[in-house]
Order: sequence, then C-alpha cells, then structure tokens
Amino acid sequence: MSHPIHDLIPDFPWSFLFIQDLIGTIVFAISGAIAARQHKMDLFGMFVLAFVTGVGGGTLRDVMIGSTPVFWMKQPIYVLMITLAVIITAIFRNSLNKAGWQKGLLIFDAIGLGVFTVIGVQKGLDFGLHPLICIALGGVTGCFGGLIRDILRNEVPIILQKEVYVTASLIGGIIFILFREAGFESNWIDVATVTTVIAIRMLTIRLNIHLPKI
Amino acid sequence: MSHPIHDLIPDFPWSFLFIQDLIGTIVFAISGAIAARQHKMDLFGMFVLAFVTGVGGGTLRDVMIGSTPVFWMKQPIYVLMITLAVIITAIFRNSLNKAGWQKGLLIFDAIGLGVFTVIGVQKGLDFGLHPLICIALGGVTGCFGGLIRDILRNEVPIILQKEVYVTASLIGGIIFILFREAGFESNWIDVATVTTVIAIRMLTIRLNIHLPKI
Amino acid sequence: MSHPIHDLIPDFPWSFLFIQDLIGTIVFAISGAIAARQHKMDLFGMFVLAFVTGVGGGTLRDVMIGSTPVFWMKQPIYVLMITLAVIITAIFRNSLNKAGWQKGLLIFDAIGLGVFTVIGVQKGLDFGLHPLICIALGGVTGCFGGLIRDILRNEVPIILQKEVYVTASLIGGIIFILFREAGFESNWIDVATVTTVIAIRMLTIRLNIHLPKI
Repeated sequence: MSHPIHDLIPDFPWSFLFIQDLIGTIVFAISGAIAARQHKMDLFGMFVLAFVTGVGGGTLRDVMIGSTPVFWMKQPIYVLMITLAVIITAIFRNSLNKAGWQKGLLIFDAIGLGVFTVIGVQKGLDFGLHPLICIALGGVTGCFGGLIRDILRNEVPIILQKEVYVTASLIGGIIFILFREAGFESNWIDVATVTTVIAIRMLTIRLNIHLPKI
Repeated sequence: MSHPIHDLIPDFPWSFLFIQDLIGTIVFAISGAIAARQHKMDLFGMFVLAFVTGVGGGTLRDVMIGSTPVFWMKQPIYVLMITLAVIITAIFRNSLNKAGWQKGLLIFDAIGLGVFTVIGVQKGLDFGLHPLICIALGGVTGCFGGLIRDILRNEVPIILQKEVYVTASLIGGIIFILFREAGFESNWIDVATVTTVIAIRMLTIRLNIHLPKI
Repeated sequence: MSHPIHDLIPDFPWSFLFIQDLIGTIVFAISGAIAARQHKMDLFGMFVLAFVTGVGGGTLRDVMIGSTPVFWMKQPIYVLMITLAVIITAIFRNSLNKAGWQKGLLIFDAIGLGVFTVIGVQKGLDFGLHPLICIALGGVTGCFGGLIRDILRNEVPIILQKEVYVTASLIGGIIFILFREAGFESNWIDVATVTTVIAIRMLTIRLNIHLPKI
C-alpha cells in the first residue's frame, strides 16, 4: 500500500491540546455509540452515529469558514479514534449504564466541550473573523455533534432543552476572547477556557441549575 | 478591544435590499424563537433555533457554492439581529399568539421569503451559475431555514406539507430570471420578484389554496 | 435566453459511469418521492424530498472536501433527472407499491449505491486524500441522501437500523482501494466495486441477513 497504517498517525510531539482533542472526540463518539445502542441500531449504524457525534461540530465549523477538506480528512487518526470509541462501547456495554461510568463520561464530556470550544474559537481567529463570530464558532464546534446525534435518533436535541450546555461553551468562548485581549499567553488562555467550561458544567449539574424558559 | 462594538455594524449608506434582508432575518429568527417556546426550550435553545431559522438558508447556499466564510461571519450585524429577535420574542411573549400579531408575522415572513429569494438568485448569478440552478438557490435561501427549524423541533417540515411556500419562492425566482432576460433594471427585477412572492403567499393563504398531493 | 435548454445537457460522448450516475440519481430521487407520498406532502414537498435524496450524498461530499460549487450546480442535467423522477413517480403512483416494482427499485437502488460509492472514492483520491478517508467518502456519497430523506420525514434513518447498507458501500470502497493498489485498470476497478456492492445488497436481502446489534 502506498499509504501504510502509520500514515494514519501524525508525528510526535503531540501538543497537549491535540491529545485533549482526541480524548474529546472519543468521548463524544462514545456518547453517539451509546445513543445508537438505545435505538437498537446495528454495528454500522452505531459507527455512523459515533462518527457524526465525534466530528460533526468541527465539520460544520470547517465547512462554514471554508477550511476544506475538513479537519478529519487531513488527519485520519480521527477515524481511528471513532473506531476505538465503538470498540470501547462494545466491550463495556454492560457496565456503561452504571452510575460510576455515567459520572466519568460526564466529566470527560465536559473536557471535550471545553477543548472543542477552544479549538473552534482559535480557528475563527486564525481566519481573521470577528470575536463575536469566533465565540459562535466555539459553540458550533462544541455543541453541533450532539445536536446531529439527537436529530439522527429522531429526538428534540437535549442540549436545547435541558442543562447549561450551549451556555457553558459560549461563556468559555467569552473567557477566551477576554483573556486574549488582556494579553495572556496562549497556554493560559486555553487552560482558563477549558477550566471555565468544565466548572460551569460540573457546578450546574451538581446544583441542578437550569436556564430559565421564556 | 481591537474589535469594538461599532465594528458589528456596517457603514452607511445601506441599500434597500440590505435593510429588507435584515428585516427578513429578524422575522425568520422570531419564527424560530416562537417554535422554541412551544417546545419549552431554554433561553439558549431559543437562541440556537432563532439563529438557524434566520441564517440557515443563506448558510447552506453559501456553503454549497463555496462562498466562505459564510455571509453572517463576515457581517456580524446578523448576530445582533438574531439577538434582537430573541429579545422581541421575550418581551412580547404573551401577545405573540394573538391574531393581529400572527397576521403581521405572516406578512413580514412573506417579505423575508421574497427578499431571501432575490438574494439567493442574485448570488447564484454572481457565481456564473445556470439560471435553473439560481432559481433553486433562491428556494434554498428562502426555505431552508424553516426546514432546519422544523427538523430541530422534531417535526415533518411544515413547508413540505402545507401552504404554497417553496412554490412561491421558485415562481419568484423564475420572475427574476425572466425580467433579467427581458433587460429590466436591477431594482425593478428585485421589486417584481419580492412582489410576486408576497402576492402568491398572501393570495394562497387568504383563498386557502394548496398544492395538489399526488 | 442566454442559457437555452440544451445547455442543461452535457455534450456526448457520455461515459458509462456518468450514465449509471444519472440512473442512480433518478432511482434515489424516486425513493425520496415515494417517501413524500407516504407522508402526504404536496407536489413541491415531493420535489424537495426527491432532490435531497438524489443529490444529498454527493452534495455533502463536495462541501466537505471543498469541491464547490457542488456537482449538480455545474451540471444542471441532475435537476432534470430529479424532475424526471418526480414525473415517473406521479405517473406510476398506483403501481409503485406492487411487488414487481419494489423488486426492480431495490435492484436499481443497489446499482445507485454502487455507482455513488465509486464516484465518492474516486473524488477523494482526486483530492489526494488518504484511502481510509476515500472509503468514508464513498459511504457518505452513497448513504447520506437516504439519511437526509429519513430525517426530513421525521424517522430514524432506516439504513442505520436495518439491512446491510452502509456496510455494502464501505466494503465496496475497500474493494476499490485494494484493486487500485493491485494495479488494475480504472474500468475494472469500477466494475469490481459496483458488482461487489450489488452482490452484497442482493444476497443479504434475499438471505435476510442483518448486522449484529451490540
């Protein structure tokens, strides 16, 4: 083969953000795979749902700003991560409903949301877009995968109804822009943003806080 | 901030079509926000639904013809219009179901459909596409926002089932192309198209005319 | 008109694959039109559903790799094919439910899936993408039209739940890559891929084989 397997994996050293991005992709993909199980989809239905949940947000972001081919086409390692997520879901299928797992997934999901927010805002800035649009792009990157997942399983997207989810991502994006305007270094901006998103998610879940309905 | 608030608003003079476009965006966004209320979504669910309804059609058009970053990323005023729509919906939430409001919304919605059709057809021509494709692009721009809105609230899109909606946009597009081939000036073409779309919408609603089902 | 009707139809000679592509588009569009009938959509609702089913997969593929304007905008003959599909569905509406028709549609649908797979993989290779991504693009091209059709009619996509459908396309894509690596000529690769997809579809339907659910 002209493209051997090791072409799938980018060269080291990997940045901390890239590793977190892969973790976020896996966790989002697992949430897609679990949703597929609940709807009695077959193995490839599960794979498709894991795929769109894992990379859907970043795909929409790239398509809208014109960064094509979209990110996962340039770095096939994402396809491996999705496959890994499906395998993990298959192996641990009997314990995925247990409380400990659920809690673990929530934490990883919050990490994923935070990292995806950072990547979305950063990519918008790289394309010279207005900060307001960059914050929106962070939200698209973080939230749209779960949105498509719920559309495909024929339900009103949960992130539109319950929980402080889109909001956490948008506030994270605002923190990113504010810290950047204040002149902080890139790594600190990333840490502040991800921490903010995780903190909002964890606190609002624990304290059972919801946004008001109008 | 390097991007102060006044960056959000483009310089004057604004064209008549641009003002109508903003009105169309607001009205479409309001219809999204009202739909969110009916499904008991929270504040940001409402914002997301208003957003996709207001700019969804133009976004799909831009993505398909390759005009990226898509229009609302280049002119952040659209995000302000969406925000305005959500605020209007929140303020007038108790009177939005009344007959007078409903009638007013229908008229503005018809204006929005007409203007969006003009913008879609024009953009297709700017990209040198075949008139048949331009008419389709007018329909995509006018109708797809409402389509995505209904997908997100988990219903069969109303514009596919009832009312002469897609048809009004497509006939408007045909009028646009015919008037252009006949050598009319740009402003007259716009007026003829928007008037046609509004007339078809108002007449078919008043006379309760529907397209045949096969 | 500066763009007379004959502009809609590309010059001869047409390649065998192009003719098959048009057949695939018609068959997929018919499946969309039939779905619209079942949901009592009106004439243009039917047209929209036929449209997205017929060209939706290729559109998503083109948008994600950045091949814009998307394929059907450059060759308006696809719009004619969709129109033809709606007319066919309207004329034969009373016999479309009969067993013979259903069987015929299944065979043509399998041909469409095979051809769309070939076109998707080939386009990925033309853009210099990794074979793994090209296989995924074949699947997107073949399967996404039916996916959007089912989303629009508000049902969990049937290809995620039943039948060996996505799998047939992906295995076809693998065959394409393997035959190409083995040095076969382009025509043979196409024939091998399409034949594989058709064979898998026909065999698994006849033998009532499904993928396992996890």
